[in-house]
Amino acid sequence: MPPQKLSARDDLEALVARYDTFLFDCDGVIWHGSTLVPHVQAALAMLRQRGKRLVFVTNNSATSRRDYAKKFAALGIDAAVDEIFSSAYATAAYLAEVARFPSDKLAYVIGGSGIRSELRDVGIASVGEDDTAPVSLPTLAEIEPNPAVGAVVFGIDYDITYRKLANAHLNIVHNPGCLFIATNDDRTLPGGKYVYPGTGAMLSSLVHSTQRTPLVMGKPNKPMLDCVMQNYHLDPATTCMVGDRLDTDILFGINGGLATLCVLTGVASEADILDPAAPQPTYYIDSLGDLATLAESA
Amino acid sequence: MPPQKLSARDDLEALVARYDTFLFDCDGVIWHGSTLVPHVQAALAMLRQRGKRLVFVTNNSATSRRDYAKKFAALGIDAAVDEIFSSAYATAAYLAEVARFPSDKLAYVIGGSGIRSELRDVGIASVGEDDTAPVSLPTLAEIEPNPAVGAVVFGIDYDITYRKLANAHLNIVHNPGCLFIATNDDRTLPGGKYVYPGTGAMLSSLVHSTQRTPLVMGKPNKPMLDCVMQNYHLDPATTCMVGDRLDTDILFGINGGLATLCVLTGVASEADILDPAAPQPTYYIDSLGDLATLAESA
Repeated sequence: MPPQKLSARDDLEALVARYDTFLFDCDGVIWHGSTLVPHVQAALAMLRQRGKRLVFVTNNSATSRRDYAKKFAALGIDAAVDEIFSSAYATAAYLAEVARFPSDKLAYVIGGSGIRSELRDVGIASVGEDDTAPVSLPTLAEIEPNPAVGAVVFGIDYDITYRKLANAHLNIVHNPGCLFIATNDDRTLPGGKYVYPGTGAMLSSLVHSTQRTPLVMGKPNKPMLDCVMQNYHLDPATTCMVGDRLDTDILFGINGGLATLCVLTGVASEADILDPAAPQPTYYIDSLGDLATLAESA
Repeated sequence: MPPQKLSARDDLEALVARYDTFLFDCDGVIWHGSTLVPHVQAALAMLRQRGKRLVFVTNNSATSRRDYAKKFAALGIDAAVDEIFSSAYATAAYLAEVARFPSDKLAYVIGGSGIRSELRDVGIASVGEDDTAPVSLPTLAEIEPNPAVGAVVFGIDYDITYRKLANAHLNIVHNPGCLFIATNDDRTLPGGKYVYPGTGAMLSSLVHSTQRTPLVMGKPNKPMLDCVMQNYHLDPATTCMVGDRLDTDILFGINGGLATLCVLTGVASEADILDPAAPQPTYYIDSLGDLATLAESA
Protein backbone atom coordinates (compact mmCIF):
# COMPACT_ATOMS: atom_id res chain seq x y z
CA MET A 1 0.00 0.00 0.00
CA PRO A 2 1.49 3.39 -0.89
CA PRO A 3 2.29 5.75 1.99
CA GLN A 4 -0.70 7.80 3.11
CA LYS A 5 -0.17 11.54 3.47
CA LEU A 6 -1.76 12.93 6.64
CA SER A 7 -2.82 16.56 6.52
CA ALA A 8 -6.58 16.78 7.11
CA ARG A 9 -7.59 17.09 10.75
CA ASP A 10 -9.57 13.82 10.57
CA ASP A 11 -6.47 11.94 9.37
CA LEU A 12 -4.43 13.29 12.27
CA GLU A 13 -7.18 12.41 14.75
CA ALA A 14 -7.35 8.88 13.34
CA LEU A 15 -3.56 8.44 13.70
CA VAL A 16 -3.57 9.53 17.32
CA ALA A 17 -6.60 7.39 18.11
CA ARG A 18 -5.10 4.29 16.54
CA TYR A 19 -1.76 4.08 18.36
CA ASP A 20 -0.97 3.93 22.08
CA THR A 21 2.77 4.41 21.77
CA PHE A 22 4.87 6.65 19.58
CA LEU A 23 8.59 6.00 19.15
CA PHE A 24 10.48 9.08 18.02
CA ASP A 25 13.77 9.59 16.28
CA CYS A 26 15.08 12.97 17.50
CA ASP A 27 17.35 14.77 15.03
CA GLY A 28 15.28 15.90 12.03
CA VAL A 29 12.02 15.09 13.83
CA ILE A 30 12.08 16.89 17.20
CA TRP A 31 15.02 19.20 16.57
CA HIS A 32 17.76 20.14 14.17
CA GLY A 33 20.95 20.22 16.24
CA SER A 34 19.94 22.66 18.97
CA THR A 35 16.85 24.19 17.33
CA LEU A 36 13.37 22.79 17.95
CA VAL A 37 11.17 21.94 14.97
CA PRO A 38 8.23 24.46 15.21
CA HIS A 39 5.19 23.40 17.27
CA VAL A 40 6.79 20.12 18.36
CA GLN A 41 6.52 21.06 22.04
CA ALA A 42 2.74 21.46 21.69
CA ALA A 43 2.40 18.31 19.59
CA LEU A 44 4.19 16.19 22.20
CA ALA A 45 2.22 17.78 25.03
CA MET A 46 -1.03 16.94 23.20
CA LEU A 47 0.03 13.30 22.87
CA ARG A 48 0.86 13.12 26.56
CA GLN A 49 -2.46 14.74 27.44
CA ARG A 50 -4.21 11.99 25.53
CA GLY A 51 -2.37 9.35 27.53
CA LYS A 52 0.04 8.21 24.84
CA ARG A 53 3.34 6.64 25.74
CA LEU A 54 6.32 8.45 24.19
CA VAL A 55 9.76 6.88 23.71
CA PHE A 56 12.70 8.73 22.18
CA VAL A 57 14.93 6.29 20.29
CA THR A 58 18.39 7.46 19.22
CA ASN A 59 21.45 5.87 17.65
CA ASN A 60 23.54 8.44 19.51
CA SER A 61 25.90 6.52 21.76
CA ALA A 62 28.24 9.34 22.69
CA THR A 63 26.15 10.75 25.53
CA SER A 64 24.38 9.00 28.38
CA ARG A 65 20.60 9.05 28.69
CA ARG A 66 20.92 11.41 31.65
CA ASP A 67 22.84 13.91 29.53
CA TYR A 68 20.39 13.39 26.69
CA ALA A 69 17.48 14.18 29.06
CA LYS A 70 19.23 17.45 29.90
CA LYS A 71 19.13 18.36 26.20
CA PHE A 72 15.36 17.82 26.14
CA ALA A 73 14.96 19.95 29.26
CA ALA A 74 17.13 22.72 27.82
CA LEU A 75 14.88 22.81 24.75
CA GLY A 76 11.78 22.97 26.94
CA ILE A 77 10.57 19.44 26.25
CA ASP A 78 9.34 17.20 28.99
CA ALA A 79 11.16 13.84 28.70
CA ALA A 80 12.12 11.49 31.52
CA VAL A 81 15.37 9.51 31.45
CA ASP A 82 13.38 6.28 31.18
CA GLU A 83 11.60 7.55 28.09
CA ILE A 84 14.93 7.83 26.29
CA PHE A 85 16.33 4.79 24.57
CA SER A 86 19.83 5.21 23.12
CA SER A 87 21.95 2.65 21.31
CA ALA A 88 24.42 2.87 24.22
CA TYR A 89 21.66 1.99 26.69
CA ALA A 90 20.40 -0.79 24.42
CA THR A 91 23.94 -2.19 24.28
CA ALA A 92 24.25 -2.18 28.07
CA ALA A 93 20.77 -3.72 28.46
CA TYR A 94 21.57 -6.41 25.89
CA LEU A 95 24.85 -7.35 27.61
CA ALA A 96 23.25 -7.46 31.06
CA GLU A 97 19.89 -9.06 30.27
CA VAL A 98 20.25 -11.06 27.05
CA ALA A 99 23.92 -12.05 27.05
CA ARG A 100 23.99 -12.30 30.89
CA PHE A 101 27.50 -10.88 30.85
CA PRO A 102 29.59 -12.44 33.66
CA SER A 103 30.33 -10.04 36.49
CA ASP A 104 34.03 -10.98 36.52
CA LYS A 105 34.52 -10.01 32.88
CA LEU A 106 35.36 -6.62 31.39
CA ALA A 107 34.07 -4.82 28.33
CA TYR A 108 36.73 -3.34 26.06
CA VAL A 109 35.08 -0.14 24.87
CA ILE A 110 35.92 1.97 21.86
CA GLY A 111 33.46 4.81 22.28
CA GLY A 112 32.46 7.83 24.30
CA SER A 113 31.54 8.32 27.93
CA GLY A 114 27.88 7.57 27.12
CA ILE A 115 28.62 3.89 26.59
CA ARG A 116 30.89 3.59 29.64
CA SER A 117 28.30 5.26 31.83
CA GLU A 118 25.43 3.03 30.63
CA LEU A 119 27.61 -0.06 31.14
CA ARG A 120 28.52 1.10 34.65
CA ASP A 121 24.81 1.51 35.44
CA VAL A 122 24.21 -2.18 34.70
CA GLY A 123 27.31 -3.22 36.64
CA ILE A 124 29.73 -3.81 33.77
CA ALA A 125 33.25 -2.41 34.11
CA SER A 126 34.92 -1.15 30.98
CA VAL A 127 38.53 -0.72 29.90
CA GLY A 128 40.23 0.84 26.89
CA GLU A 129 39.67 4.53 27.57
CA ASP A 130 43.33 5.11 28.42
CA ASP A 131 44.78 3.24 25.46
CA THR A 132 45.98 6.41 23.81
CA ALA A 133 49.77 6.05 24.12
CA PRO A 134 51.67 6.17 20.82
CA VAL A 135 52.48 2.89 19.07
CA SER A 136 55.47 1.99 16.92
CA LEU A 137 56.26 -1.13 14.92
CA PRO A 138 59.12 -2.27 17.19
CA THR A 139 56.85 -2.08 20.27
CA LEU A 140 53.70 -3.43 18.61
CA ALA A 141 54.25 -6.86 20.17
CA GLU A 142 53.74 -5.31 23.61
CA ILE A 143 50.03 -5.00 22.78
CA GLU A 144 48.45 -8.26 23.89
CA PRO A 145 44.94 -9.63 24.34
CA ASN A 146 43.47 -9.17 27.82
CA PRO A 147 41.90 -12.51 28.85
CA ALA A 148 39.55 -10.70 31.26
CA VAL A 149 37.80 -9.01 28.33
CA GLY A 150 34.54 -10.78 27.45
CA ALA A 151 33.09 -8.21 25.05
CA VAL A 152 34.33 -5.57 22.66
CA VAL A 153 31.83 -2.70 22.43
CA PHE A 154 32.20 -0.27 19.55
CA GLY A 155 30.61 3.18 19.22
CA ILE A 156 31.71 6.52 17.83
CA ASP A 157 35.00 7.51 19.41
CA TYR A 158 36.55 10.85 18.51
CA ASP A 159 39.64 9.77 20.45
CA ILE A 160 40.14 6.56 18.51
CA THR A 161 43.75 5.33 18.37
CA TYR A 162 45.61 2.52 16.66
CA ARG A 163 46.32 1.09 20.11
CA LYS A 164 42.58 0.86 20.86
CA LEU A 165 41.89 -0.83 17.54
CA ALA A 166 44.79 -3.26 18.06
CA ASN A 167 43.57 -4.17 21.55
CA ALA A 168 39.99 -4.62 20.37
CA HIS A 169 41.23 -6.75 17.46
CA LEU A 170 43.32 -9.02 19.69
CA ASN A 171 40.53 -9.47 22.25
CA ILE A 172 38.00 -10.41 19.57
CA VAL A 173 40.37 -12.82 17.83
CA HIS A 174 42.07 -14.44 20.83
CA ASN A 175 39.55 -14.44 23.69
CA PRO A 176 37.27 -17.48 23.29
CA GLY A 177 33.62 -16.43 23.18
CA CYS A 178 34.41 -12.71 23.21
CA LEU A 179 31.30 -10.78 22.12
CA PHE A 180 31.60 -8.09 19.46
CA ILE A 181 28.85 -5.48 19.67
CA ALA A 182 28.42 -2.16 17.89
CA THR A 183 26.03 0.49 19.15
CA ASN A 184 25.07 1.39 15.58
CA ASP A 185 26.47 1.32 12.06
CA ASP A 186 25.64 4.73 10.60
CA ARG A 187 28.02 5.25 7.70
CA THR A 188 28.19 8.99 8.17
CA LEU A 189 27.48 11.53 10.88
CA PRO A 190 25.90 14.93 10.22
CA GLY A 191 28.02 17.75 11.64
CA GLY A 192 26.58 20.97 10.26
CA LYS A 193 27.56 21.86 6.70
CA TYR A 194 29.24 18.51 6.04
CA VAL A 195 28.83 14.88 6.95
CA TYR A 196 31.71 13.06 8.65
CA PRO A 197 32.75 9.42 9.02
CA GLY A 198 30.19 7.68 11.26
CA THR A 199 30.33 4.74 13.63
CA GLY A 200 29.79 2.25 10.81
CA ALA A 201 32.73 3.61 8.86
CA MET A 202 35.08 3.47 11.85
CA LEU A 203 33.78 0.00 12.71
CA SER A 204 34.79 -1.26 9.24
CA SER A 205 38.45 -1.34 10.32
CA LEU A 206 37.74 -3.89 13.01
CA VAL A 207 35.33 -5.90 10.90
CA HIS A 208 37.95 -6.11 8.16
CA SER A 209 40.89 -6.95 10.43
CA THR A 210 39.03 -9.56 12.52
CA GLN A 211 36.77 -10.89 9.74
CA ARG A 212 34.02 -11.06 12.37
CA THR A 213 30.53 -9.62 12.09
CA PRO A 214 29.44 -7.56 15.09
CA LEU A 215 25.96 -7.58 16.56
CA VAL A 216 24.72 -4.10 15.66
CA MET A 217 22.17 -2.76 18.14
CA GLY A 218 21.00 0.55 16.66
CA LYS A 219 18.49 1.51 13.99
CA PRO A 220 17.68 0.07 11.48
CA ASN A 221 18.78 -3.20 13.13
CA LYS A 222 16.38 -5.30 15.11
CA PRO A 223 18.25 -5.81 18.43
CA MET A 224 17.49 -2.29 19.67
CA LEU A 225 13.84 -2.58 18.68
CA ASP A 226 13.60 -5.91 20.49
CA CYS A 227 15.00 -4.18 23.58
CA VAL A 228 12.54 -1.29 23.25
CA MET A 229 9.51 -3.54 22.77
CA GLN A 230 10.50 -5.74 25.70
CA ASN A 231 11.52 -2.90 27.99
CA TYR A 232 8.19 -1.06 27.68
CA HIS A 233 6.04 -4.18 27.04
CA LEU A 234 4.78 -2.71 23.78
CA ASP A 235 2.25 -4.19 21.38
CA PRO A 236 3.46 -3.82 17.77
CA ALA A 237 -0.16 -3.42 16.62
CA THR A 238 -0.58 -0.17 18.55
CA THR A 239 2.94 1.26 18.24
CA CYS A 240 4.05 3.77 15.61
CA MET A 241 7.67 4.68 14.78
CA VAL A 242 8.19 8.32 13.77
CA GLY A 243 11.32 9.33 11.89
CA ASP A 244 12.85 11.37 9.08
CA ARG A 245 15.08 8.75 7.42
CA LEU A 246 13.72 5.92 5.32
CA ASP A 247 16.84 3.75 5.51
CA THR A 248 17.17 3.89 9.28
CA ASP A 249 14.06 5.04 11.18
CA ILE A 250 11.35 3.81 8.81
CA LEU A 251 13.18 0.58 8.00
CA PHE A 252 13.64 0.06 11.74
CA GLY A 253 9.88 0.29 12.27
CA ILE A 254 9.15 -1.95 9.29
CA ASN A 255 11.68 -4.54 10.53
CA GLY A 256 9.78 -4.66 13.80
CA GLY A 257 6.35 -4.94 12.22
CA LEU A 258 5.31 -1.46 13.41
CA ALA A 259 3.33 1.26 11.69
CA THR A 260 5.64 4.07 10.58
CA LEU A 261 5.25 7.80 10.16
CA CYS A 262 7.82 9.73 8.12
CA VAL A 263 8.20 13.48 8.65
CA LEU A 264 9.48 15.84 5.96
CA THR A 265 11.49 18.05 8.34
CA GLY A 266 14.65 15.97 8.05
CA VAL A 267 16.45 13.84 5.47
CA ALA A 268 13.60 12.29 3.42
CA SER A 269 11.73 14.38 0.85
CA GLU A 270 8.25 13.65 -0.49
CA ALA A 271 9.89 12.36 -3.69
CA ASP A 272 12.02 9.93 -1.65
CA ILE A 273 8.90 8.64 0.09
CA LEU A 274 7.03 8.18 -3.16
CA ASP A 275 9.89 6.11 -4.64
CA PRO A 276 8.55 2.55 -4.35
CA ALA A 277 12.13 1.17 -4.24
CA ALA A 278 12.69 2.85 -0.84
CA PRO A 279 11.37 1.51 2.48
CA GLN A 280 7.73 2.62 2.50
CA PRO A 281 6.30 4.29 5.59
CA THR A 282 2.66 3.69 6.49
CA TYR A 283 2.07 7.44 6.74
CA TYR A 284 3.87 10.68 6.12
CA ILE A 285 3.32 14.22 7.32
CA ASP A 286 4.94 17.59 6.66
CA SER A 287 6.05 17.99 10.25
CA LEU A 288 5.50 16.44 13.64
CA GLY A 289 4.45 19.98 14.59
CA ASP A 290 1.29 19.55 12.49
CA LEU A 291 -0.13 17.41 15.30
CA ALA A 292 -0.20 20.55 17.46
CA THR A 293 -3.36 21.62 15.62
CA LEU A 294 -5.18 18.87 17.51
CA ALA A 295 -4.14 20.52 20.76
CA GLU A 296 -5.12 24.05 19.88
CA SER A 297 -8.80 23.15 19.45
CA ALA A 298 -8.89 20.70 22.35
CA MET B 1 51.32 -26.95 -14.32
CA PRO B 2 51.82 -27.81 -10.65
CA PRO B 3 54.57 -25.95 -8.77
CA GLN B 4 58.01 -27.50 -9.27
CA LYS B 5 60.07 -28.12 -6.14
CA LEU B 6 63.70 -27.12 -6.59
CA SER B 7 66.20 -28.99 -4.46
CA ALA B 8 68.68 -30.77 -6.74
CA ARG B 9 71.69 -28.70 -7.70
CA ASP B 10 70.81 -28.93 -11.41
CA ASP B 11 67.37 -27.44 -10.72
CA LEU B 12 68.90 -24.52 -8.85
CA GLU B 13 71.47 -23.95 -11.63
CA ALA B 14 68.67 -23.96 -14.22
CA LEU B 15 66.67 -21.40 -12.23
CA VAL B 16 69.60 -19.03 -11.95
CA ALA B 17 70.50 -19.48 -15.61
CA ARG B 18 66.97 -18.79 -16.80
CA TYR B 19 66.27 -15.43 -15.13
CA ASP B 20 68.17 -12.14 -15.31
CA THR B 21 66.27 -10.39 -12.54
CA PHE B 22 65.01 -11.55 -9.17
CA LEU B 23 62.43 -9.53 -7.28
CA PHE B 24 62.43 -10.29 -3.56
CA ASP B 25 59.89 -9.87 -0.84
CA CYS B 26 61.89 -9.30 2.36
CA ASP B 27 60.13 -10.44 5.54
CA GLY B 28 59.92 -14.24 5.55
CA VAL B 29 62.32 -14.51 2.61
CA ILE B 30 65.46 -12.52 3.51
CA TRP B 31 64.80 -12.05 7.21
CA HIS B 32 62.36 -12.58 10.03
CA GLY B 33 62.06 -9.22 11.78
CA SER B 34 65.70 -8.53 12.58
CA THR B 35 67.14 -12.04 12.06
CA LEU B 36 68.57 -13.12 8.69
CA VAL B 37 67.34 -16.36 7.13
CA PRO B 38 70.42 -18.67 7.17
CA HIS B 39 72.75 -18.52 4.12
CA VAL B 40 70.78 -15.71 2.47
CA GLN B 41 73.81 -13.45 2.43
CA ALA B 42 75.79 -16.00 0.43
CA ALA B 43 72.84 -16.74 -1.87
CA LEU B 44 72.40 -13.06 -2.77
CA ALA B 45 76.15 -12.59 -3.20
CA MET B 46 76.21 -15.56 -5.62
CA LEU B 47 73.38 -14.01 -7.67
CA ARG B 48 75.24 -10.70 -7.85
CA GLN B 49 78.43 -12.47 -8.83
CA ARG B 50 76.60 -14.03 -11.74
CA GLY B 51 75.43 -10.62 -12.90
CA LYS B 52 71.79 -10.89 -11.83
CA ARG B 53 69.76 -7.79 -11.08
CA LEU B 54 68.22 -7.84 -7.60
CA VAL B 55 65.23 -5.73 -6.56
CA PHE B 56 63.74 -5.78 -3.07
CA VAL B 57 59.99 -5.13 -3.25
CA THR B 58 58.16 -4.33 -0.01
CA ASN B 59 54.65 -3.25 0.93
CA ASN B 60 56.20 -1.49 3.93
CA SER B 61 55.32 2.17 3.62
CA ALA B 62 56.27 3.29 7.11
CA THR B 63 59.98 3.77 6.44
CA SER B 64 61.76 5.49 3.56
CA ARG B 65 63.97 3.54 1.16
CA ARG B 66 67.01 5.19 2.69
CA ASP B 67 66.06 3.88 6.13
CA TYR B 68 65.25 0.51 4.63
CA ALA B 69 68.72 0.37 3.03
CA LYS B 70 70.18 0.95 6.49
CA LYS B 71 68.38 -2.16 7.71
CA PHE B 72 70.00 -4.21 4.92
CA ALA B 73 73.41 -2.77 5.80
CA ALA B 74 72.91 -3.50 9.50
CA LEU B 75 72.17 -7.14 8.61
CA GLY B 76 75.30 -7.33 6.45
CA ILE B 77 73.50 -7.40 3.11
CA ASP B 78 74.66 -5.32 0.21
CA ALA B 79 71.61 -3.39 -1.15
CA ALA B 80 71.58 0.03 -2.77
CA VAL B 81 68.73 2.47 -2.21
CA ASP B 82 67.77 2.19 -5.87
CA GLU B 83 67.45 -1.58 -5.58
CA ILE B 84 64.70 -1.11 -2.99
CA PHE B 85 61.15 -0.61 -4.15
CA SER B 86 58.63 0.16 -1.42
CA SER B 87 54.93 0.84 -1.74
CA ALA B 88 55.60 4.38 -0.46
CA TYR B 89 58.15 4.95 -3.22
CA ALA B 90 55.79 3.44 -5.81
CA THR B 91 53.04 5.80 -4.60
CA ALA B 92 55.31 8.83 -4.97
CA ALA B 93 56.51 7.66 -8.39
CA TYR B 94 52.93 7.06 -9.52
CA LEU B 95 51.79 10.53 -8.42
CA ALA B 96 54.77 12.27 -10.02
CA GLU B 97 55.11 10.30 -13.25
CA VAL B 98 51.75 8.73 -14.08
CA ALA B 99 49.25 11.14 -12.49
CA ARG B 100 51.53 14.16 -13.19
CA PHE B 101 50.47 15.64 -9.87
CA PRO B 102 50.29 19.46 -10.15
CA SER B 103 53.06 21.26 -8.27
CA ASP B 104 50.61 23.66 -6.62
CA LYS B 105 48.57 20.86 -5.05
CA LEU B 106 49.10 19.11 -1.73
CA ALA B 107 48.84 15.47 -0.73
CA TYR B 108 46.83 14.78 2.42
CA VAL B 109 48.75 11.90 3.97
CA ILE B 110 47.57 9.40 6.55
CA GLY B 111 50.75 7.41 7.04
CA GLY B 112 54.25 7.38 8.40
CA SER B 113 57.34 9.42 7.65
CA GLY B 114 58.31 6.99 4.89
CA ILE B 115 55.51 8.21 2.64
CA ARG B 116 56.09 11.90 3.41
CA SER B 117 59.80 11.54 2.70
CA GLU B 118 59.27 9.74 -0.63
CA LEU B 119 56.72 12.37 -1.68
CA ARG B 120 59.13 15.15 -0.74
CA ASP B 121 61.81 13.51 -2.89
CA VAL B 122 59.55 13.82 -5.96
CA GLY B 123 58.59 17.40 -5.08
CA ILE B 124 55.17 16.79 -3.54
CA ALA B 125 54.32 18.59 -0.29
CA SER B 126 52.16 16.76 2.20
CA VAL B 127 49.82 17.84 4.98
CA GLY B 128 47.91 16.02 7.70
CA GLU B 129 50.72 15.01 10.01
CA ASP B 130 49.68 17.53 12.66
CA ASP B 131 45.96 16.71 12.63
CA THR B 132 46.09 15.11 16.02
CA ALA B 133 44.09 17.60 18.12
CA PRO B 134 41.04 16.14 19.90
CA VAL B 135 37.65 16.36 18.21
CA SER B 136 34.21 16.72 19.76
CA LEU B 137 30.76 16.69 18.20
CA PRO B 138 30.09 20.41 18.83
CA THR B 139 33.34 21.38 17.06
CA LEU B 140 33.14 18.81 14.29
CA ALA B 141 31.92 21.42 11.82
CA GLU B 142 35.25 23.22 12.13
CA ILE B 143 36.83 20.40 10.12
CA GLU B 144 36.53 21.41 6.50
CA PRO B 145 37.88 20.22 3.17
CA ASN B 146 41.13 21.87 2.05
CA PRO B 147 40.73 22.85 -1.63
CA ALA B 148 44.52 22.74 -2.11
CA VAL B 149 44.52 18.97 -1.52
CA GLY B 150 44.66 17.05 -4.81
CA ALA B 151 45.34 13.57 -3.43
CA VAL B 152 44.67 11.59 -0.29
CA VAL B 153 47.44 9.05 0.31
CA PHE B 154 46.80 6.29 2.82
CA GLY B 155 49.36 4.02 4.46
CA ILE B 156 49.77 2.47 7.90
CA ASP B 157 49.63 5.23 10.51
CA TYR B 158 50.14 4.32 14.15
CA ASP B 159 49.15 7.89 15.02
CA ILE B 160 45.83 7.76 13.22
CA THR B 161 43.14 10.10 14.60
CA TYR B 162 39.48 10.79 13.91
CA ARG B 163 40.52 14.27 12.76
CA LYS B 164 42.82 12.79 10.11
CA LEU B 165 40.09 10.45 8.86
CA ALA B 166 37.55 13.29 8.80
CA ASN B 167 39.91 15.54 6.82
CA ALA B 168 40.77 12.76 4.37
CA HIS B 169 37.05 11.96 3.98
CA LEU B 170 36.10 15.59 3.26
CA ASN B 171 38.95 16.09 0.77
CA ILE B 172 38.03 12.93 -1.15
CA VAL B 173 34.31 13.75 -1.21
CA HIS B 174 34.41 17.52 -1.81
CA ASN B 175 37.57 18.25 -3.84
CA PRO B 176 36.78 17.64 -7.51
CA GLY B 177 39.22 15.16 -9.03
CA CYS B 178 40.92 14.41 -5.72
CA LEU B 179 42.96 11.19 -6.08
CA PHE B 180 42.62 8.45 -3.46
CA ILE B 181 45.67 6.19 -3.29
CA ALA B 182 46.64 3.53 -0.77
CA THR B 183 50.20 2.25 -0.46
CA ASN B 184 48.92 -1.29 0.13
CA ASP B 185 45.91 -3.13 1.48
CA ASP B 186 47.33 -5.82 3.74
CA ARG B 187 44.53 -6.84 6.08
CA THR B 188 46.86 -7.63 8.95
CA LEU B 189 50.38 -6.80 10.01
CA PRO B 190 52.71 -9.32 11.67
CA GLY B 191 54.09 -7.97 14.93
CA GLY B 192 55.80 -10.89 16.67
CA LYS B 193 53.52 -13.30 18.49
CA TYR B 194 50.32 -11.76 17.12
CA VAL B 195 49.06 -10.10 13.98
CA TYR B 196 47.60 -6.60 14.20
CA PRO B 197 45.25 -4.53 12.05
CA GLY B 198 47.02 -3.73 8.77
CA THR B 199 46.81 -0.88 6.27
CA GLY B 200 43.89 -2.49 4.47
CA ALA B 201 41.86 -2.75 7.67
CA MET B 202 42.46 0.89 8.61
CA LEU B 203 41.73 1.93 5.02
CA SER B 204 38.28 0.30 5.24
CA SER B 205 37.01 3.20 7.36
CA LEU B 206 37.66 5.68 4.59
CA VAL B 207 36.43 3.38 1.83
CA HIS B 208 33.19 2.87 3.74
CA SER B 209 32.63 6.53 4.64
CA THR B 210 33.47 7.90 1.17
CA GLN B 211 32.12 4.97 -0.85
CA ARG B 212 35.14 5.44 -3.11
CA THR B 213 37.61 2.79 -4.20
CA PRO B 214 41.26 3.75 -3.80
CA LEU B 215 44.00 2.89 -6.25
CA VAL B 216 46.06 0.38 -4.26
CA MET B 217 49.73 0.37 -5.24
CA GLY B 218 51.26 -2.51 -3.27
CA LYS B 219 51.41 -6.27 -3.68
CA PRO B 220 49.41 -8.14 -4.94
CA ASN B 221 48.07 -5.22 -6.97
CA LYS B 222 49.42 -4.41 -10.39
CA PRO B 223 50.29 -0.69 -10.09
CA MET B 224 53.44 -1.34 -8.06
CA LEU B 225 54.56 -4.07 -10.45
CA ASP B 226 53.99 -1.76 -13.42
CA CYS B 227 56.20 0.80 -11.66
CA VAL B 228 58.90 -1.79 -10.96
CA MET B 229 58.92 -3.16 -14.51
CA GLN B 230 59.04 0.32 -16.02
CA ASN B 231 61.57 1.71 -13.57
CA TYR B 232 64.14 -1.03 -14.21
CA HIS B 233 63.10 -1.76 -17.83
CA LEU B 234 62.52 -5.41 -17.00
CA ASP B 235 61.47 -8.18 -19.36
CA PRO B 236 58.74 -10.33 -17.77
CA ALA B 237 60.12 -13.41 -19.56
CA THR B 238 63.40 -13.25 -17.65
CA THR B 239 62.15 -11.93 -14.29
CA CYS B 240 61.28 -14.08 -11.28
CA MET B 241 59.37 -12.91 -8.20
CA VAL B 242 60.49 -14.54 -4.93
CA GLY B 243 58.18 -14.49 -1.91
CA ASP B 244 56.74 -16.39 1.03
CA ARG B 245 53.04 -15.51 0.68
CA LEU B 246 50.83 -16.96 -1.99
CA ASP B 247 48.09 -14.32 -1.73
CA THR B 248 50.43 -11.32 -1.98
CA ASP B 249 53.91 -12.08 -3.36
CA ILE B 250 53.11 -15.00 -5.62
CA LEU B 251 49.82 -13.51 -6.83
CA PHE B 252 51.68 -10.27 -7.50
CA GLY B 253 54.13 -12.11 -9.78
CA ILE B 254 51.35 -14.05 -11.49
CA ASN B 255 49.36 -10.82 -12.06
CA GLY B 256 52.39 -9.41 -13.85
CA GLY B 257 53.05 -12.50 -15.97
CA LEU B 258 56.29 -13.31 -14.15
CA ALA B 259 57.73 -16.62 -13.05
CA THR B 260 57.41 -17.04 -9.29
CA LEU B 261 59.42 -18.80 -6.62
CA CYS B 262 57.85 -19.46 -3.24
CA VAL B 263 60.09 -20.06 -0.21
CA LEU B 264 59.02 -22.11 2.81
CA THR B 265 60.72 -19.88 5.40
CA GLY B 266 57.71 -17.61 5.84
CA VAL B 267 53.93 -17.83 5.72
CA ALA B 268 53.23 -20.50 3.07
CA SER B 269 53.73 -24.18 3.90
CA GLU B 270 54.29 -26.95 1.36
CA ALA B 271 50.65 -28.00 1.91
CA ASP B 272 49.49 -24.46 1.08
CA ILE B 273 51.51 -24.52 -2.13
CA LEU B 274 50.14 -27.91 -3.17
CA ASP B 275 46.53 -26.69 -2.72
CA PRO B 276 45.42 -26.09 -6.31
CA ALA B 277 42.86 -23.51 -5.13
CA ALA B 278 45.67 -21.16 -4.02
CA PRO B 279 47.74 -18.99 -6.38
CA GLN B 280 50.29 -21.44 -7.83
CA PRO B 281 53.96 -20.47 -7.94
CA THR B 282 56.11 -21.70 -10.82
CA TYR B 283 58.68 -23.06 -8.36
CA TYR B 284 59.16 -23.55 -4.67
CA ILE B 285 62.19 -24.10 -2.51
CA ASP B 286 62.82 -24.76 1.18
CA SER B 287 64.76 -21.55 1.64
CA LEU B 288 66.36 -18.83 -0.42
CA GLY B 289 69.51 -19.84 1.48
CA ASP B 290 69.56 -23.10 -0.51
CA LEU B 291 70.91 -21.13 -3.47
CA ALA B 292 74.08 -20.56 -1.45
CA THR B 293 75.18 -24.10 -2.33
CA LEU B 294 75.81 -22.84 -5.86
CA ALA B 295 78.27 -20.34 -4.45
CA GLU B 296 80.18 -22.74 -2.23
CA SER B 297 81.32 -24.85 -5.15
CA ALA B 298 81.89 -21.95 -7.53
